[in-house]
Amino acid sequence: MAEDILPCDIDRAVEPFGLVIFGASGDLARRKLIPSLYNLYLRDALPERFFIVGAARTVYNDTSYRDVVRDSIGSDRGGKVDEFLKHIFYQDIVYDQYDSYTSLKRKLSALSRRYRTGGNLLFYFAVPPSLSGLIIEAVGKKGLNRGRGWVRLVMEKPFGSNLEDARRLNRTVHAYFKEESIFRIDHYLGKETVQDILLFRFANSIFEPLWNRNYIDHVQITAAETIGVGSRAGYYDSTGILRDMFQNHLIQLLSIIALEPPAVFEPKRIREEKVKVFRSLRRVSKDEIPEVSVFGQYKSGRVNGEVLPGYRDEKGIDPNSVTPTFAAIRVFIDNWRWQGVPFYLRSGKRLKRRVTEVSVHFHDLPHSIFGPEIGSVIEPNVLVFRIQPEESIELRFQSKLPGTRLCVREVKMAFSYRGEQEMGLPDAYERVLLDCMRGDHMLFVGQEGVELAWEFFMPFIEFLDGGGAGKSVRFYSPGTWGPRAADGFIRRDGRAWWVK
Amino acid sequence: MAEDILPCDIDRAVEPFGLVIFGASGDLARRKLIPSLYNLYLRDALPERFFIVGAARTVYNDTSYRDVVRDSIGSDRGGKVDEFLKHIFYQDIVYDQYDSYTSLKRKLSALSRRYRTGGNLLFYFAVPPSLSGLIIEAVGKKGLNRGRGWVRLVMEKPFGSNLEDARRLNRTVHAYFKEESIFRIDHYLGKETVQDILLFRFANSIFEPLWNRNYIDHVQITAAETIGVGSRAGYYDSTGILRDMFQNHLIQLLSIIALEPPAVFEPKRIREEKVKVFRSLRRVSKDEIPEVSVFGQYKSGRVNGEVLPGYRDEKGIDPNSVTPTFAAIRVFIDNWRWQGVPFYLRSGKRLKRRVTEVSVHFHDLPHSIFGPEIGSVIEPNVLVFRIQPEESIELRFQSKLPGTRLCVREVKMAFSYRGEQEMGLPDAYERVLLDCMRGDHMLFVGQEGVELAWEFFMPFIEFLDGGGAGKSVRFYSPGTWGPRAADGFIRRDGRAWWVK
Repeated sequence: MAEDILPCDIDRAVEPFGLVIFGASGDLARRKLIPSLYNLYLRDALPERFFIVGAARTVYNDTSYRDVVRDSIGSDRGGKVDEFLKHIFYQDIVYDQYDSYTSLKRKLSALSRRYRTGGNLLFYFAVPPSLSGLIIEAVGKKGLNRGRGWVRLVMEKPFGSNLEDARRLNRTVHAYFKEESIFRIDHYLGKETVQDILLFRFANSIFEPLWNRNYIDHVQITAAETIGVGSRAGYYDSTGILRDMFQNHLIQLLSIIALEPPAVFEPKRIREEKVKVFRSLRRVSKDEIPEVSVFGQYKSGRVNGEVLPGYRDEKGIDPNSVTPTFAAIRVFIDNWRWQGVPFYLRSGKRLKRRVTEVSVHFHDLPHSIFGPEIGSVIEPNVLVFRIQPEESIELRFQSKLPGTRLCVREVKMAFSYRGEQEMGLPDAYERVLLDCMRGDHMLFVGQEGVELAWEFFMPFIEFLDGGGAGKSVRFYSPGTWGPRAADGFIRRDGRAWWVK
Repeated sequence: MAEDILPCDIDRAVEPFGLVIFGASGDLARRKLIPSLYNLYLRDALPERFFIVGAARTVYNDTSYRDVVRDSIGSDRGGKVDEFLKHIFYQDIVYDQYDSYTSLKRKLSALSRRYRTGGNLLFYFAVPPSLSGLIIEAVGKKGLNRGRGWVRLVMEKPFGSNLEDARRLNRTVHAYFKEESIFRIDHYLGKETVQDILLFRFANSIFEPLWNRNYIDHVQITAAETIGVGSRAGYYDSTGILRDMFQNHLIQLLSIIALEPPAVFEPKRIREEKVKVFRSLRRVSKDEIPEVSVFGQYKSGRVNGEVLPGYRDEKGIDPNSVTPTFAAIRVFIDNWRWQGVPFYLRSGKRLKRRVTEVSVHFHDLPHSIFGPEIGSVIEPNVLVFRIQPEESIELRFQSKLPGTRLCVREVKMAFSYRGEQEMGLPDAYERVLLDCMRGDHMLFVGQEGVELAWEFFMPFIEFLDGGGAGKSVRFYSPGTWGPRAADGFIRRDGRAWWVK
């Protein structure tokens, strides 16, 4: 197996580069970026000539930051940590003082010469969105965006906290960077199954003919977490489930399921097709919102014998908060392919189990040739892309029950990524880092897409913020599938949630 | 699982009956019928009131025939053999002497009264086709076909040895029996997967839309055996592969793949649809035969270190025989659904492995959006129904190779019957026996179907018998996939055999 995979795994060389991580002392950098970079290093995916500069408010020097890095990597798997650490540097920075950036610039110039990176630079923004604009402005004003090599910008979601904000941030970025230098991460897009949806659709001749309103009854997208708000309380309370999950992950998944086949599989063309989906989303007026959505907030309760605090009891949360931690929304796409096919999106915290799944539900049989003697209900076909916790594709179909009489029952054909690769699936962050280094935009989000997604969700957000939340958010017990109203919501359409 | 299956397994009561097995001392009766009847008995599928009368030339009495039955069952699995034997009787018979039938009639009358079977009688013809006509005539003339209950006729294939013969046999049968009393067995139709093809097609909304010339490139049906002619030499040499496998099994499989959806799932309606397929088979003139077929005969050779005799060296075979033991044929179905879609049928003895499989090959992608960077060939989708040795359904599709680059590879989703049921799949003979007892024709072959199948194959048979065999039969080594010409045959159409 391994031989089969390697040529696909790393097939294009990465040019020498320098990487600056803003927010280098933060959670994301330590838990995700550093381990992923080390993994890439172990897999020989990085070029020989590269350097990484941590940049953050905390005062470290190269040596003390290397301890942070060593600590992030954990046990010295692969035995190359010392070697890797030679590529690590640090520059403390006060984000709103331009002088800081002068020191950073000096350091980067020296390192570029030393590592002969040709001036290629990657700025990774592992900071809250409120800081991004500020830093980009400083980077631009101090000329860090110009040099002999390429300069790229990697931005973590959320891209702004509303449409206006996102537009403002995009304007700032574009003042100093070209759109093609910008890599807006949605790490869901780095998951194997998400990428495989596109392949599944377009590398097989038998699925695309079925991929439309004639054969598909509806689509469900569920992203369920069992954890609560945890240590992200302050951030989460002002964000809520719509900004945290819907405006980015869920709507991105929807666009990948729904997009028209591009003529070529190129990042720009895929991005265009996604934008077309976003433009086709049926806009919802504020009045219609209670009809097409259900909001919830988890209360305290017992799960597996453990008493869990309600959202309002969590540390850092306003005890009167009406921020939703659950939402279910019905979306229509107004184009030829999807007219009349509802997409049900659902996400929440403290739900029954951790699962992210897209299920495509085909129509009922147009006509059953089987009389009452068949003995059981004939369930419609379902195609399931599971993205978390394991990654798999599954087709549910009807088959004959073994035996001397004719009986039907639902069976599944499944294909799972688990056990497919000895070295394990590459982490989504490894994937996105490598793509930034190579300048491949396939899995990143474009400006227009971001703004259109905000545009679609703004009425919902305004509804919630404008008093709607207080009126419509319903409490639900932890370990359930959200407020009971969410079941009634889909049942009114004659359907039921697939993930139970 | 067991609870789920039982209600489907035996859901309609079998009325009391008497069963007469003509050829009761023969191979089929001993190896297949008796063990299957005992299995049905163990599974409580038989009614309390039934009796079985063995009838054959060999002289036994009830007691000595019970020893034959005990021997056929083998080890007393289930511990009910003694109980079962109480239902077994014997009547020796000279097939061409009507007096014999008088004794049989007397015996049946007595047993019918004793077992209160209401006169229900099932005649099972486990005799060569040459004898069937004779026996039916005698049964009819002696009035064994008339009585208080139903009388049914179970006939083993082959139904005649050519079209004329089949017509003659059918006329004889119809002189004494109504078509609905006749059960012509093709035990392939009793296989789970064969029945499941119909369910797969008509109980799922997603396959039927793909089931036509727009999406299917071609279909392959392979029935390969590793064994040689064995002890059937005399019979086989006058029969050959076309009569032995094609005119019945392969063409029946083809009809199940190809038939139009009936409005209701009823034996008569399915049979009608099969007949429509047979009528639509594109007739081949004698001149065209070398173009659409390849014939072969196995020669001697070494397989796994063992030297196997060639067909001509087998005991009982004429050393100059040109009887084919392999054939590959291309068939077209001239209707809207299948116009231009070739069906490749292939069967032979002493081939590489034992496998019976139908593979449905979908078209190539109409357009690949993936450029050269995808790195590998995109294979068309294939749906495989495996009937032997294990029973399974498998869908081959393209999926992403795990890794940070986009590579495609073929994977399969599979569904297997193995391990699905603790008690094991019912044997095809159990299934057909039970259906005869219940009067369910679903898996049996109708008169018109038999005659149309003969009609289609007659030019081939006449071609072979009229000197074509001597000119066209090619020798092949055991343990291969037949003569090399068979590969060239399908390759000329730009395709390749799926089973290799």
